[in-house]
Amino acid sequence: MKIKYELISQDKKARRGLLHTNHGTVETPMFMPVGTLANVKMLTPEEIKEVGSGVILSNTYHLWLRPDEDVVAKAGGLHKFMNYDGPILTDSGGFQVFSLAKNKKKDITEEGVHFKSHIDGKSLFLTPELSMEIQNKLDSDIAMSFDECIPYPATYEYTKESTERTLRWAKRGKDSFNNPNQSLFGIVQGGAYPKLRKYSAEKTVEMDFDGYSIGGTSVGEDKKTMYEMVDNAIKYLPEDKPRYLMGVGEPEDLLEGVERGVDMFDCVLPTRLARHANAFTPYGKINLKNAKYKEDFTPISDTCDCYTCKHYTKAYLRHLFVAKEGLGGRLLSIHNIRFLIKMTEDMRNAISEGNFIEYKEQFLEKYKN
Amino acid sequence: MKIKYELISQDKKARRGLLHTNHGTVETPMFMPVGTLANVKMLTPEEIKEVGSGVILSNTYHLWLRPDEDVVAKAGGLHKFMNYDGPILTDSGGFQVFSLAKNKKKDITEEGVHFKSHIDGKSLFLTPELSMEIQNKLDSDIAMSFDECIPYPATYEYTKESTERTLRWAKRGKDSFNNPNQSLFGIVQGGAYPKLRKYSAEKTVEMDFDGYSIGGTSVGEDKKTMYEMVDNAIKYLPEDKPRYLMGVGEPEDLLEGVERGVDMFDCVLPTRLARHANAFTPYGKINLKNAKYKEDFTPISDTCDCYTCKHYTKAYLRHLFVAKEGLGGRLLSIHNIRFLIKMTEDMRNAISEGNFIEYKEQFLEKYKN
Repeated sequence: MKIKYELISQDKKARRGLLHTNHGTVETPMFMPVGTLANVKMLTPEEIKEVGSGVILSNTYHLWLRPDEDVVAKAGGLHKFMNYDGPILTDSGGFQVFSLAKNKKKDITEEGVHFKSHIDGKSLFLTPELSMEIQNKLDSDIAMSFDECIPYPATYEYTKESTERTLRWAKRGKDSFNNPNQSLFGIVQGGAYPKLRKYSAEKTVEMDFDGYSIGGTSVGEDKKTMYEMVDNAIKYLPEDKPRYLMGVGEPEDLLEGVERGVDMFDCVLPTRLARHANAFTPYGKINLKNAKYKEDFTPISDTCDCYTCKHYTKAYLRHLFVAKEGLGGRLLSIHNIRFLIKMTEDMRNAISEGNFIEYKEQFLEKYKN
Repeated sequence: MKIKYELISQDKKARRGLLHTNHGTVETPMFMPVGTLANVKMLTPEEIKEVGSGVILSNTYHLWLRPDEDVVAKAGGLHKFMNYDGPILTDSGGFQVFSLAKNKKKDITEEGVHFKSHIDGKSLFLTPELSMEIQNKLDSDIAMSFDECIPYPATYEYTKESTERTLRWAKRGKDSFNNPNQSLFGIVQGGAYPKLRKYSAEKTVEMDFDGYSIGGTSVGEDKKTMYEMVDNAIKYLPEDKPRYLMGVGEPEDLLEGVERGVDMFDCVLPTRLARHANAFTPYGKINLKNAKYKEDFTPISDTCDCYTCKHYTKAYLRHLFVAKEGLGGRLLSIHNIRFLIKMTEDMRNAISEGNFIEYKEQFLEKYKN
């Protein structure tokens, strides 16, 4: 079965909905924790569910290299391999080619991208067809089209050329796609050029995907440009399909994205911050290694309902981080992911109640990053 | 309340019993997971309980340095600090002075031991009184006397001198001990000399501790000598007090220890092995990084009832270790600790049924290390 998006309520452009998948129905707007290598770092599936996750994301590029898609397929697909029965989305590998290729060198041809492995420098060649084949084998619920993530800034000419190639790649991927239980999203590129975003969105929508991602907005634009690009993509996207803003996870960006009609977000931010002792709080981020928490026997946040805040103090977490004990990163990952997911729950309620903007303003008034 | 040992059944020298503590009644023989820095590496208290742990151990030396005993005391003691409501035992720091002092240099005087921190080289001075003060503040259920862990081999003269000093330290520690809710164990030293083990045991028992540890047997003796030293200590220990063989955790050593009348064991082995991808199985240890597990979609052990074996395959665990994902060490720690604790459960049942030796022989016949 393909996924289905069901609109529940709307507050101006902000929308609340349901995403029906083969692994359950989940609510949008949603924040998707990232499980790069078939696990959300340090966490079990039970913990991922306990924090209220809807869909989780896993990375095609990483799983292609380790353990490789055939091992995952022989295990019965990614869900069985990693023991997770909720919905999983896989990206296409396009972003990792851009961000992780050894020395960031890559050779983009019409056929695909030649680059070297970030692990051992081995030559690799990823094409739209191969990305689909890998994702089909991984058997995620939602697969992504293979795209080029355009660097920022880029000239109009380069951006146009790349955007058109990404459209051709999207078509090739869709044509070769071969898993009836898996949905496929198109990705809107177009860099920082409104005209190209429009062009990319319209041409991608013409191909009729199961959902639409907005790509290339998290790689270096200023925030204002990013939000404009989101506006310039979303207005050309159909109402009955989910919209996914890729790689975005700062609280303020979730708010801005939802306000513009985004349904799905993903980011490594909460787990990466956690490994460096940085915690989200309603008053902004704090670093738990700070000496002022040495004897602070209160939770990270009084209002947080996560396992970590219910059971552990800042003093204990600080101790774990100072002593380099891995449990610290684990407990803080739970909190940070829960923080973003709780935000999406609050946003959904605000949308239903028609006061999304009030919620956003109240949140931002407290939250100074 | 002081702990109380209750003998339930006996099979030759092997004994099954109950240990009544301020944090619940637990069964012996028991294996105690080590929570060095106020956490069993990577695991939550819930997980520690789920694997069937009775008492856990935490290290006075480590907590003295980080976060320091006053922070723990201000948190309300170690149980509250680390969110663990089961019984906790703290060691005295004596073993860490021996094993961790920077460059292993230390200056042992009658007063105490001068040595340098393994973290920053800072000069430190630990005495029996200070060890008790720290442990009293940590407020564990069971504290250990401060002893010298004698290197092996050592001359009779040095061993005698050290053993006598440890007895004087035990007395000083007991005299300064000041926590009515905490129990204190004496430690039998005496190196590899039966005569000194007897002397140490008898003199320690004269001081009337709440339980007795057998120390210095895990630092390099051959196994035969170790078992002889255990025999030469236990026969002088009272029946109504628990006996704790320190730092021992290999399956065969648990069996040999229990056969000789030991009630308690601790070791970092299961968690340390886990971090290096080594798993206990009924057929000996295996390393999960081995290529032969790449497509092995069976659990570590078919007969294991742990969370990890119920939900994950060797192929998945191998992937986590190869990709250096911390979840691998976490999941394998659960399995390895459960393996040793399950052994103690089986030993308890075998004792009750009067067939401990049969159990031991059957176990060892399969288990080739």
